Amino acid sequence: MMMGHRWTALVTLLALLVYFWMSFQVARARGKTGIDAPAMTGDPLMERAVRVHYNTLEWLPIFLVSLWLFAIYWNELVAAGLGLVWIAGRLLYSVGYMADPAKRSTGFLIQLLACAVLLFGALGKIVYGLAIGV
Amino acid sequence: MMMGHRWTALVTLLALLVYFWMSFQVARARGKTGIDAPAMTGDPLMERAVRVHYNTLEWLPIFLVSLWLFAIYWNELVAAGLGLVWIAGRLLYSVGYMADPAKRSTGFLIQLLACAVLLFGALGKIVYGLAIGV
Amino acid sequence: MMMGHRWTALVTLLALLVYFWMSFQVARARGKTGIDAPAMTGDPLMERAVRVHYNTLEWLPIFLVSLWLFAIYWNELVAAGLGLVWIAGRLLYSVGYMADPAKRSTGFLIQLLACAVLLFGALGKIVYGLAIGV
Repeated sequence: MMMGHRWTALVTLLALLVYFWMSFQVARARGKTGIDAPAMTGDPLMERAVRVHYNTLEWLPIFLVSLWLFAIYWNELVAAGLGLVWIAGRLLYSVGYMADPAKRSTGFLIQLLACAVLLFGALGKIVYGLAIGV
Repeated sequence: MMMGHRWTALVTLLALLVYFWMSFQVARARGKTGIDAPAMTGDPLMERAVRVHYNTLEWLPIFLVSLWLFAIYWNELVAAGLGLVWIAGRLLYSVGYMADPAKRSTGFLIQLLACAVLLFGALGKIVYGLAIGV
Repeated sequence: MMMGHRWTALVTLLALLVYFWMSFQVARARGKTGIDAPAMTGDPLMERAVRVHYNTLEWLPIFLVSLWLFAIYWNELVAAGLGLVWIAGRLLYSVGYMADPAKRSTGFLIQLLACAVLLFGALGKIVYGLAIGV
């Protein structure tokens, strides 16, 4: 039951803390560059911080939903492990992107791969369950 | 229990795949127009692709939460069916918007209606449950 | 079990209705200023409405996930109560931001605090549960 999915819940909250740190990185870039809200552009450093944050936001629904469906319909610990890989990919993506937009690919691919395994793993298990009728 | 909501889970993953395809449409528009990250503007085609993707992101929390609450508190198969309507509306929205921003309305209204039925259906059922105290 | 979390579900749907109203505020700003999609900038009122909407979108994953994990792993009614505080903070944030970007801080801090209690409360309860092995 839900109460049992503590490892998935823990990885979920860690991912949200990393995501929150990215929004903090935007706030610091605002401070450094003096670009006040509501402006979202005007300095490369600030724009990179915004994109790191927003690209992670874009992927959160895919990641969180796939993580939980994989954990619920297939395997809790494998889901949590892949979740940690996703977080590591996201941190690498952020460090790379802030240094140079061209260096964002490695971290991006790692998080993409982790998401793909979670999503297609859950999808396969769910379709299989529907097909054999349990 | 959760394990039983396979149809809802299936529609959820289909919606996320359509949403992922929209982000891919942005990447292709970047390629065609030569606008590198972190820039998000500079070409109408690119800006439309970004807006299709982000408008869908904006609606994902409303859609996914309403879909699941409707499925859990009311009816699984009706929820999944309305979810498919939402996906169809989103695809129409994307095709319309990419052709001409003025042509985005039909698809938008279809997905809005599907979301409204899911949200107010779930809300009504939950309030009713609280009122009769079960 | 899930069916029991009606108060959490109710607060969740209220939060989504407030969030939907913010997107409606963007649509009205488009109407007033005559800025057509896909443009997202060009007028201070419009840009503020967009930022109110998008900042709330940014926080929805943190809020909704923390709300539900707190409700599931700890206490349903405390979670729902903190959820109402979050909604109030968001409304204050919107009213403040639309009047003047410098006036967005109070509402922002209220919602930040509500999210922090939900997130760290859930995190603490989950880590505790894993540590004592139940």
